[in-house]
Amino acid sequence: MREVSIETGVTKHAEGSCLIKIGGTHVICTASLEPRVPPFIKGSGLGWVTAEYGMLPRSTGSRMRREATTGKQGGRTVEIQRLIGRALRAGVDRNALGERQITVDCDVIQADGGTRCAAITGGWVALRLAVNKLLKARDIVTDPLVSPVAAVSCGIYAGQAILDLDYAEDSEAGVDGNFILRGDGALIEVQTSAEGSVFSRDQMTQLMDLAEKGVSELVAAQKAACA
Amino acid sequence: MREVSIETGVTKHAEGSCLIKIGGTHVICTASLEPRVPPFIKGSGLGWVTAEYGMLPRSTGSRMRREATTGKQGGRTVEIQRLIGRALRAGVDRNALGERQITVDCDVIQADGGTRCAAITGGWVALRLAVNKLLKARDIVTDPLVSPVAAVSCGIYAGQAILDLDYAEDSEAGVDGNFILRGDGALIEVQTSAEGSVFSRDQMTQLMDLAEKGVSELVAAQKAACA
Amino acid sequence: MREVSIETGVTKHAEGSCLIKIGGTHVICTASLEPRVPPFIKGSGLGWVTAEYGMLPRSTGSRMRREATTGKQGGRTVEIQRLIGRALRAGVDRNALGERQITVDCDVIQADGGTRCAAITGGWVALRLAVNKLLKARDIVTDPLVSPVAAVSCGIYAGQAILDLDYAEDSEAGVDGNFILRGDGALIEVQTSAEGSVFSRDQMTQLMDLAEKGVSELVAAQKAACA
Amino acid sequence: MREVSIETGVTKHAEGSCLIKIGGTHVICTASLEPRVPPFIKGSGLGWVTAEYGMLPRSTGSRMRREATTGKQGGRTVEIQRLIGRALRAGVDRNALGERQITVDCDVIQADGGTRCAAITGGWVALRLAVNKLLKARDIVTDPLVSPVAAVSCGIYAGQAILDLDYAEDSEAGVDGNFILRGDGALIEVQTSAEGSVFSRDQMTQLMDLAEKGVSELVAAQKAACA
Amino acid sequence: MREVSIETGVTKHAEGSCLIKIGGTHVICTASLEPRVPPFIKGSGLGWVTAEYGMLPRSTGSRMRREATTGKQGGRTVEIQRLIGRALRAGVDRNALGERQITVDCDVIQADGGTRCAAITGGWVALRLAVNKLLKARDIVTDPLVSPVAAVSCGIYAGQAILDLDYAEDSEAGVDGNFILRGDGALIEVQTSAEGSVFSRDQMTQLMDLAEKGVSELVAAQKAACA
Amino acid sequence: MREVSIETGVTKHAEGSCLIKIGGTHVICTASLEPRVPPFIKGSGLGWVTAEYGMLPRSTGSRMRREATTGKQGGRTVEIQRLIGRALRAGVDRNALGERQITVDCDVIQADGGTRCAAITGGWVALRLAVNKLLKARDIVTDPLVSPVAAVSCGIYAGQAILDLDYAEDSEAGVDGNFILRGDGALIEVQTSAEGSVFSRDQMTQLMDLAEKGVSELVAAQKAACA
Repeated sequence: MREVSIETGVTKHAEGSCLIKIGGTHVICTASLEPRVPPFIKGSGLGWVTAEYGMLPRSTGSRMRREATTGKQGGRTVEIQRLIGRALRAGVDRNALGERQITVDCDVIQADGGTRCAAITGGWVALRLAVNKLLKARDIVTDPLVSPVAAVSCGIYAGQAILDLDYAEDSEAGVDGNFILRGDGALIEVQTSAEGSVFSRDQMTQLMDLAEKGVSELVAAQKAACA
Repeated sequence: MREVSIETGVTKHAEGSCLIKIGGTHVICTASLEPRVPPFIKGSGLGWVTAEYGMLPRSTGSRMRREATTGKQGGRTVEIQRLIGRALRAGVDRNALGERQITVDCDVIQADGGTRCAAITGGWVALRLAVNKLLKARDIVTDPLVSPVAAVSCGIYAGQAILDLDYAEDSEAGVDGNFILRGDGALIEVQTSAEGSVFSRDQMTQLMDLAEKGVSELVAAQKAACA
Repeated sequence: MREVSIETGVTKHAEGSCLIKIGGTHVICTASLEPRVPPFIKGSGLGWVTAEYGMLPRSTGSRMRREATTGKQGGRTVEIQRLIGRALRAGVDRNALGERQITVDCDVIQADGGTRCAAITGGWVALRLAVNKLLKARDIVTDPLVSPVAAVSCGIYAGQAILDLDYAEDSEAGVDGNFILRGDGALIEVQTSAEGSVFSRDQMTQLMDLAEKGVSELVAAQKAACA
Repeated sequence: MREVSIETGVTKHAEGSCLIKIGGTHVICTASLEPRVPPFIKGSGLGWVTAEYGMLPRSTGSRMRREATTGKQGGRTVEIQRLIGRALRAGVDRNALGERQITVDCDVIQADGGTRCAAITGGWVALRLAVNKLLKARDIVTDPLVSPVAAVSCGIYAGQAILDLDYAEDSEAGVDGNFILRGDGALIEVQTSAEGSVFSRDQMTQLMDLAEKGVSELVAAQKAACA
Repeated sequence: MREVSIETGVTKHAEGSCLIKIGGTHVICTASLEPRVPPFIKGSGLGWVTAEYGMLPRSTGSRMRREATTGKQGGRTVEIQRLIGRALRAGVDRNALGERQITVDCDVIQADGGTRCAAITGGWVALRLAVNKLLKARDIVTDPLVSPVAAVSCGIYAGQAILDLDYAEDSEAGVDGNFILRGDGALIEVQTSAEGSVFSRDQMTQLMDLAEKGVSELVAAQKAACA
Repeated sequence: MREVSIETGVTKHAEGSCLIKIGGTHVICTASLEPRVPPFIKGSGLGWVTAEYGMLPRSTGSRMRREATTGKQGGRTVEIQRLIGRALRAGVDRNALGERQITVDCDVIQADGGTRCAAITGGWVALRLAVNKLLKARDIVTDPLVSPVAAVSCGIYAGQAILDLDYAEDSEAGVDGNFILRGDGALIEVQTSAEGSVFSRDQMTQLMDLAEKGVSELVAAQKAACA
């Protein structure tokens, strides 16, 4: 696992925010609170947590075209932000949140592998801080955050299962996986893909063992940051 | 597992085609051969297999807006077609295919759960038939198809792991997974998501056992259809 | 006139549906009923019938780009679906239909000339079946369908007026026309275009004679299918 | 037939231009010459004539949204500009034109019915003037313009066939047609549509008789303007 | 200063309209009145004046692509129309206008430098005429137009400050400025840009002196046109 | 003038980068070097400097919609990034730069007024650092950067000319201006707009005096940061 640092309160406007650094991957996460929910749950009494993801054009080795100029978010971006939203919601009691929406924006300042996992882990911190504000103001009484959510990538590189791939490892890995878990050990999402080589049930087991170990480190860092 | 039927040769223009029915889910799959590859592999000697996915507006219980009129493919569509392409490529020796591209189009005529899995399974059949034509014409000499690729959904519904969810089950399932395997047993992609409830390592194991069973049935149906 | 076949009830979700085959041209037509009308006739007591048209990417000899990926419907598509909607409405008493909308989707599975005419002819069958359901359920009391609507293409090919052109004939024809009539003989729309050669009043008369003959065959097939 | 006036040379930049007024309908038509043709005919030795159509936002009774701000040309616009291009090409010998493209832009300054017919008639004048310039400069030797092209609308209004409908008549007409002819009497395009009421073969004949009369007046006005 | 002519009442539909010619630059300006305001000022009692700008494709030396076909207004267009709207509003007492919106459309028929300044100057005339209609009909009682608004370009060309640049001068000018003033001498907007060479405070002063002179001529022409 | 801080080298991938803070306004600026220029200057021997601008969704008091999801950059964004590019180019000898392009991306992390001025000032630092790298590597021999470029906003607030407006002042200011100057005192761009109240020549002079003072402070900060 690469070095993890989480600095909170990095923007004055957002209800919750942090800059998470996992090795060379740096992501600014903000949580924005709104008093209304999307139309499809209006009147249900339930809250909503959603996420958006972006990369600064020069967060990568060579400059990427800005998505605002291409006229749409690319397939990879859409996939990632749907994943972040789904992951965070698995740690939230939407009844306890009540009819409010929290949008978590994850913007990659510098990329070096594992940006979606860093976004989920940092996004949870921003969400935690925004909800703390609601609790402190007694806008809500029961904490809607059930258990912290964190994510780590694992893959098979040179025949070996390894944890938290950086960009160089990720580019070479034959199998690449993202594992999202809660602090209580429950699984939220498992995505393992062959990227050039297939894999066996045994290798799948090794990856999951590594992921459990990595996530417990991340959850410790999240708790320290929010303390 | 719901009843599976695969009818081949359903359109006269495509190099390979089938109509796959898995219960109430019906998908037309066509494979289109082109003599050139995308720019990023030009001159590499490698081939390319890609996929696109669509749903007829009234393939579903209530009419969906046609994506051509909304001005873009939705996030779900993009995610699914990237998955189909990645899955099929894991069964292909791109060196043996040579510098040609095969585009697999999967269009859902009637949806009743598991459309992406049906698309992968039927898409493989279309691909197999198109490649057979190349082999027969001696345009290529070594079969580039390594092992059949098939996919099945499994989920946890009412606390129980079940195989091949239809739409009603899928809507209620707390955990939903898609498993893509090869005929030789190798894993290609595992995607398991919490949809309302989280899951344990034990449940993950049960889902994978079911998936192996389901895929072997599908591979048998693929072979029978291509014989 | 090429062989005509109309199979009804091809999708379980739509209120009305058919697969129409006119020679090598195969189109799935569905009619979807909605309890509300577009804003411009809200409160008028009138109903609305509209249509959309699409082609599967490999319905044609070489694969076409999917319109959902190009970001918009092409000019030809827009022209055709406006034509289909206008044609079908000419057979409908919108007062008797009441404030409901029926959307007819026509998706070409395999193209071999005359897809817009097949779409109109099959679209009418889907509409008829959807309206039959409304009548049976006594949701409406007076049949809003005045007279069946059908369409046929005629053209001048090698100096000779011919009926129901297939793709090969259509590509070579110097003049190309689409004729939409009602079962009671009334004209709905006449579109005749020079495509390489111009034409005379005499030739126009020959085309119209052929069209009347062709449409009466199609109306008979529609009636048989709905019986 | 409403009063017709055609003023040529209305913009200094275009190779050919005119302002055509047919009653209250005013259209600026320009012809722009380019030394290259679209990719699909490159190297064929053939020329190309194409057209684009637009309306100023306040050319109509109530302001229309500018198409540049809606992000695309509407279906009506696309239909009309395809029609104009097709019509003009029917009067051109593309071999004699050689590998050059002429784009005819038709922009409606004030609309009062029949804008597409005015655009075709005025567009021909702009085209004629641009070609005259090529002939004068001896860039081409054989006149590629075979016979003038003009268009007129006819319709059935209050049960009666009438020529050259203004906006008020057009809005009320039960049947609406556009007739495009050449100066030599040949038919180029006939489009007759039911708009509320259907029509008979007899009525079709009356409309065509009127159209022939109207077009001959327009051709005379074109000739006078270009003299 | 090039010759200025302003012809009013050039389209019958608009509440106010003119064709302004400043040398070879010709712009049609129309003012369209609507009884409602944009959402952000609804209920405030204030009115709104906004503007849109366009160029006919062949208003320029070589044909430009039509913005409606490129799918969006270019950066230059957006900048210009925001400028026109802002400029005109500086001459309007929005309280006296009341909750109505006037949209000023400026469409360039022929361009020869200074189109945005011509659009502002002509746009004011169209606005003045539309407001006169409101006053005459006693829909409003206090004249909301405080003082006429006009604009002129000045630049530094061959080291010398000059007034009202035509296209040839503008292309060569090292510094290019647009100056918007009111008839009462107040400054509304000053935009001076280095285009190849920078400039000094002294030169800035010369440009402003020229601008004051030019605008007073334009205001006289506006008054004469509206009289 | 609010407190200014410029931290360089904030991302490891970009050829030049800084985080500029002017009071509560924080902008990340990166300069990306590419070995090719846009088509319109290919083969001219000249280089190109261009800029793009963006705001993180929660850089502002209430969350803004991400431009990548709206399908285009808004008018304000386009205006600002054109301004930044134009400003920076006024400090560059494009002959000395040679045929290479430098893209300066300015992304606002936290906004509190004057973001475009901060972007220009910080953008220059990123550009300076990227060019230093080229000089050090002896890829170019003559320094193409003529004189530093910096920008400051000034406005009239409560009747008084003031320097470097924060968001609260900017919202209330009746006149708002952006002044871009070079370190050698030359003017690059002056943009002064009435926002609710007009202004006089005297006030214009006061604003320009303030701007000269502000820019000299900024240039000192730029020099210190690049030392």
